[in-house]
Amino acid sequence: MATGRPIVLTTDFGLSDAYVGVMKGVILGINPSATIVDLTHQVQPQNLVHASFILKTSHNFFPPGSIHVAVVDPGVGTSRKAILLASPAGTFVAPDNGILSGVLEPFLNRHPIYGDTIPVPAGCAAYELANPDYQLHPVSSTFHGRDIFSPAAAHVSLGAAPETFGPPLRELVWLPFPQPVQDGQRITGQVIYADHFGNLVTNIPGTMVQGKDRAVAEFQSRRMEGLHRTFHQDPNHPAGEPVALVGSNGYLEIAVPNGNAASLLAGGAGDMVEVVTS
Amino acid sequence: MATGRPIVLTTDFGLSDAYVGVMKGVILGINPSATIVDLTHQVQPQNLVHASFILKTSHNFFPPGSIHVAVVDPGVGTSRKAILLASPAGTFVAPDNGILSGVLEPFLNRHPIYGDTIPVPAGCAAYELANPDYQLHPVSSTFHGRDIFSPAAAHVSLGAAPETFGPPLRELVWLPFPQPVQDGQRITGQVIYADHFGNLVTNIPGTMVQGKDRAVAEFQSRRMEGLHRTFHQDPNHPAGEPVALVGSNGYLEIAVPNGNAASLLAGGAGDMVEVVTS
Amino acid sequence: MATGRPIVLTTDFGLSDAYVGVMKGVILGINPSATIVDLTHQVQPQNLVHASFILKTSHNFFPPGSIHVAVVDPGVGTSRKAILLASPAGTFVAPDNGILSGVLEPFLNRHPIYGDTIPVPAGCAAYELANPDYQLHPVSSTFHGRDIFSPAAAHVSLGAAPETFGPPLRELVWLPFPQPVQDGQRITGQVIYADHFGNLVTNIPGTMVQGKDRAVAEFQSRRMEGLHRTFHQDPNHPAGEPVALVGSNGYLEIAVPNGNAASLLAGGAGDMVEVVTS
Repeated sequence: MATGRPIVLTTDFGLSDAYVGVMKGVILGINPSATIVDLTHQVQPQNLVHASFILKTSHNFFPPGSIHVAVVDPGVGTSRKAILLASPAGTFVAPDNGILSGVLEPFLNRHPIYGDTIPVPAGCAAYELANPDYQLHPVSSTFHGRDIFSPAAAHVSLGAAPETFGPPLRELVWLPFPQPVQDGQRITGQVIYADHFGNLVTNIPGTMVQGKDRAVAEFQSRRMEGLHRTFHQDPNHPAGEPVALVGSNGYLEIAVPNGNAASLLAGGAGDMVEVVTS
Repeated sequence: MATGRPIVLTTDFGLSDAYVGVMKGVILGINPSATIVDLTHQVQPQNLVHASFILKTSHNFFPPGSIHVAVVDPGVGTSRKAILLASPAGTFVAPDNGILSGVLEPFLNRHPIYGDTIPVPAGCAAYELANPDYQLHPVSSTFHGRDIFSPAAAHVSLGAAPETFGPPLRELVWLPFPQPVQDGQRITGQVIYADHFGNLVTNIPGTMVQGKDRAVAEFQSRRMEGLHRTFHQDPNHPAGEPVALVGSNGYLEIAVPNGNAASLLAGGAGDMVEVVTS
Repeated sequence: MATGRPIVLTTDFGLSDAYVGVMKGVILGINPSATIVDLTHQVQPQNLVHASFILKTSHNFFPPGSIHVAVVDPGVGTSRKAILLASPAGTFVAPDNGILSGVLEPFLNRHPIYGDTIPVPAGCAAYELANPDYQLHPVSSTFHGRDIFSPAAAHVSLGAAPETFGPPLRELVWLPFPQPVQDGQRITGQVIYADHFGNLVTNIPGTMVQGKDRAVAEFQSRRMEGLHRTFHQDPNHPAGEPVALVGSNGYLEIAVPNGNAASLLAGGAGDMVEVVTS
């Protein structure tokens, strides 16, 4: 019987190798009835900001009991810990390298936080994945997705209690996620990534710019008057000109109707975006 | 228990973002036992002809009760309707933009049809996806795949009756799919897309060219004598020379044995192909 | 109810077309409760060495009852047989073109073997997929993944006995997989493929180079002293310089910490790698 707790995989492993398939094989070897879903495996290689943003803006669309396996893990095999985070938003197994910062952010008292670590927020609990009974042996030094994280998720899906995985943790590594800066009516943010359509997704939350009388976005010296509601709301929109809108993940995007903004504007991660509201 | 009615996803969302994963999360939140299958998510961005052709040539390989979610949706958030089509070939949820034309074609009395809309064929029924009980709220203006189509499919898989989704529709948008032209023994068609192997898939049905004494295909001034049965039937075939054959989807293809026709011949969508039969 | 015997798909079909999705549709039409897993669909087109290596190093991470569908099939529609291999490591359906050589290797008495065919090893059994009751009709001459291999796997998952698929086979086609050569303390191997991270995966088993006092790898005139244990064990490692390590699949890899070895070193399949141990 398929479990009601899907196991959701997010990695930078791509799909050209067998890495993701092997993780699924390990999971099914432990729980033959597991429901396994791919969130994406095309996080930019070793880009924790990209991974954290995707998890932050996606995990709430999964059932609350979902078990997320998040593996972007440049430090695999070094001293970085492997962790399990039990939160009201789901259970997460991941390296302790900040990849869960976006998921943790809503549970923090103060934010944004600058620093290397944060205390585990109230309502959440974290454990080190140290119990060898929940690992594949021998544990390699280069593929904990297969040997530690997948088995852990499978055992959680079978009902293993979080505290049986290892010692509780008080602090977690925090990722210095680039935050938008508000200076009066001027908001300065940046592009986090270009999506498959070439839309430039920024770190400016829609809540900062929506509901104002007027919003003017500026990107690469181009001014975009007002926020569009859809990609193609104006049949008379000049070809190739960008528009600003709040995307489906709740963040401001720069898009070119009927075009690919990333290639037409040569835009990408790190590019500055400004919005002036009034 | 896994349902006997798979939910089959076809989109142009790609796999680099979380869009497809999020759709699956929404489906599993409504029906935790849903069986979800990807047909492909690499329809060329916003290319309705490509999407329609893929659906047309693929949906019959799925069980008759399958629920297809087809989202290539340049008009998302505009006045285009969201629809449910119940047909003998399966249930489809999609934008009403012509993406289902290839699926509808076998049910039409006359064809090809040129025009903007068609009446819903006999034996089929269509409804607008208007019932808010079957939507994710708030409904965004840019991602109906997540907010309207995935929830609709999940509710169909749980047994919701088609007529509960919204008002019945009498007409559906029709896509002016490029049709091959027959002039005596000469058939003129075009390439619809190049597949992963570089085979150039045309819009000429195999039924137009098979069973003739002689068929000579011409592509980019190269003549191909006869239809091959397989990609590598002739060990003495000159290297780099194209062959014509009827592919596994029932349409004429131009291929280069042991090579990539799309790159070797610099061929692609829209290129003309001629076949003379006798 | 989901079966305890997953069906695992490995092909060179890519994900841009509907080929893989259609295979899943066919499987679900026969066994609506099948659990289907993708190992990878991005085997390099028609590259049997790549496919064989991936299967060899991955299949043991799946439950022993798993049913593998392996379709890299340049000879589809020609005289090459379609086969079912029942082995202690799982059941495999595939073209008889050597793609299963890596899976069969551990069961052979002598190895490496040079030659065109091998006898079916003791403990294994092989059958031709000839029973029309287990095929999709009409059987095309270009897509046996859909018409022969997927239906066969689905019927195996429903409990069909191997011997009901067709006549037993005594010999199987063997792939002349490139083997590393040992000459005293010098081992000469080659790169099989570059993975998603650009790591250059070689055919030198870790068992040949591990546990020695000293190992010096050479690739493109660059010397790598010692085997690294992880990708980032040395914070002072010079930027852009390659390291050698035994990867998670048990074979020697050339990697560049924080970089893409394949692009930085312009390396790829067939490139020579030497290791001198002492």
